[in-house]
Amino acid sequence: MESLFLLVLGNTEISTVPGISVAGATPELTRLTPVADAEYLFHEKPLTIDVIPVTPEGHPTPAIITKAAKELANFPVLVVRGGTYLAPFIPHIHISNAVGRDFRKEPALPEFGEIIRRAKLLGEELNKMPIKELVIGESTPGGTTTAQAVLWALGYEAKTSSASPNNPQSLKEKVISEAFKRAGIEKGQLRDNPLEALRQFGDSMLATVIGVSLGFRKNVVLAGGTQMLAVSALLGALGESLDRFMIATTKWVVNDKSATFLETAREIGIVSYAADLDFSKSEFKGLRDYERGYVKEGVGAGGATWLAVKAGFSPEEVSKKVEELYGRLMEMKST
Amino acid sequence: MESLFLLVLGNTEISTVPGISVAGATPELTRLTPVADAEYLFHEKPLTIDVIPVTPEGHPTPAIITKAAKELANFPVLVVRGGTYLAPFIPHIHISNAVGRDFRKEPALPEFGEIIRRAKLLGEELNKMPIKELVIGESTPGGTTTAQAVLWALGYEAKTSSASPNNPQSLKEKVISEAFKRAGIEKGQLRDNPLEALRQFGDSMLATVIGVSLGFRKNVVLAGGTQMLAVSALLGALGESLDRFMIATTKWVVNDKSATFLETAREIGIVSYAADLDFSKSEFKGLRDYERGYVKEGVGAGGATWLAVKAGFSPEEVSKKVEELYGRLMEMKST
Repeated sequence: MESLFLLVLGNTEISTVPGISVAGATPELTRLTPVADAEYLFHEKPLTIDVIPVTPEGHPTPAIITKAAKELANFPVLVVRGGTYLAPFIPHIHISNAVGRDFRKEPALPEFGEIIRRAKLLGEELNKMPIKELVIGESTPGGTTTAQAVLWALGYEAKTSSASPNNPQSLKEKVISEAFKRAGIEKGQLRDNPLEALRQFGDSMLATVIGVSLGFRKNVVLAGGTQMLAVSALLGALGESLDRFMIATTKWVVNDKSATFLETAREIGIVSYAADLDFSKSEFKGLRDYERGYVKEGVGAGGATWLAVKAGFSPEEVSKKVEELYGRLMEMKST
Repeated sequence: MESLFLLVLGNTEISTVPGISVAGATPELTRLTPVADAEYLFHEKPLTIDVIPVTPEGHPTPAIITKAAKELANFPVLVVRGGTYLAPFIPHIHISNAVGRDFRKEPALPEFGEIIRRAKLLGEELNKMPIKELVIGESTPGGTTTAQAVLWALGYEAKTSSASPNNPQSLKEKVISEAFKRAGIEKGQLRDNPLEALRQFGDSMLATVIGVSLGFRKNVVLAGGTQMLAVSALLGALGESLDRFMIATTKWVVNDKSATFLETAREIGIVSYAADLDFSKSEFKGLRDYERGYVKEGVGAGGATWLAVKAGFSPEEVSKKVEELYGRLMEMKST
């Protein structure tokens, strides 16, 4: 296969603000979601924790979609530690261990320059390989809030999606307002200074994806929802043509009426693909609830499905494989 | 290019035994040689230390050859941290931070299983990419001693090379005898138990290269001197056919009369290539001394030259580029 899937892991302290993130069963476990997601792609279950990440209500991580697509299409996956609390117990490319700080109190990512430099070096080496396309997914609890802050700083009236059907928009807007006040800026004020937006409000995942995308000069599929809009907006503001980029996400993100995915994508000028997965007939409530707006996207689920479709599998086959994987997890649990 | 160069970094406590390793100006600096070598490939000079690694007598690291070949042929390079004291300040694939213990006192690498498992996962992912050939180099101070111990445990009467013209063979043999006594084994006794030889006497570089080579199923060029003989012997003893493997090293290793490179390679059944570099006419004493048996090999110098030759450059052109890089370093030093 001439595509390579990168999974970039990031953490931000913003995920610990109560109500911001449901990417883990508890706030403590949420911090471990990126490494557990990555480990699950390579093993029957994560290694750092004994179960796959779930929302507080028990909905399974979208890593299950990525794993399903990977097992079907057999595309290569490399995990990249953009900046996390812990290192995953699997081989991974180390960029940094910088966790995004609470942007209400201080600049989120003073390390942005070093992270971009290193990630760009990685992108340059990958660019020399006979790889035609990078598909870059992410796992970053709290990342839709940092993404929204960056988009606002760049002048987009974006609302980002959430892993909950009750998108905590008013909470997101409150913490972002506090951050803007702390930094002394207004919406759109960093339109011409994207790196300052990244430093003030971003996270290590965003910086890593930017760096890799600048170093790798061929096609890049940004595999994610509204967080990849922030990446696109940053790249555009840095003067990078978006012609070789597209976003691959899921229909659940595109259909999310509490967010502005398609509208913001149009404003930024980036094309997008939405994986038509359907879990409505699943045997498992945890999966059926995806159709009610739970989880939606993450771990590059939409981009992994894109790769499976390119390899000749249908979204139905991916959905079926997800069902099978979830069944396997349930069996392990009951034994 | 359809070849990928991996540089695997390892440390072993054995390098701190006085007289064993000259892969650094002092014992303290020797511990940092792997990360400094790796950083130098991507920057004008290392980041962890301010100068390139040199022997106590000032001979430059063979990383200068690898860097020369890389700059000429532009092949992709990924650095792999098999197990080192520090992480390099560049993007690298993390396998472990396990440093090989002093095998006179205890088993060298209790972590061998986990390292092989992770490295094999990496090899499997690389195997899915459109890469036809891996070229695997290493930087592991003290590694010729662990390699010789492993070869002896597997029953080869090998003498490994050294970065000094005065190969400390009697000292190597003394520490290996102590280790064999501690472990209660004799030469050849682990012939049928290669993993125990690795656990008792090996290092994290050896384990990592074994793992990657088991996961990647296409051609592998083991880029190194006598340490890669130990890798080959371990792979053979594990039942792996050596048909898809070759060793690429330098003429300085092959011509080393204090070691048994070609003889041991023949016993193991692995083919080899020797890069015909010639520094005899260099302006710099540090390089001319390579012709007198200093340094000889390391950082995949021979394999990097192999890649440059495959890309259409002559060994003379590589030598000339080395001269240019060394000149640049001298200029930096004098300013």
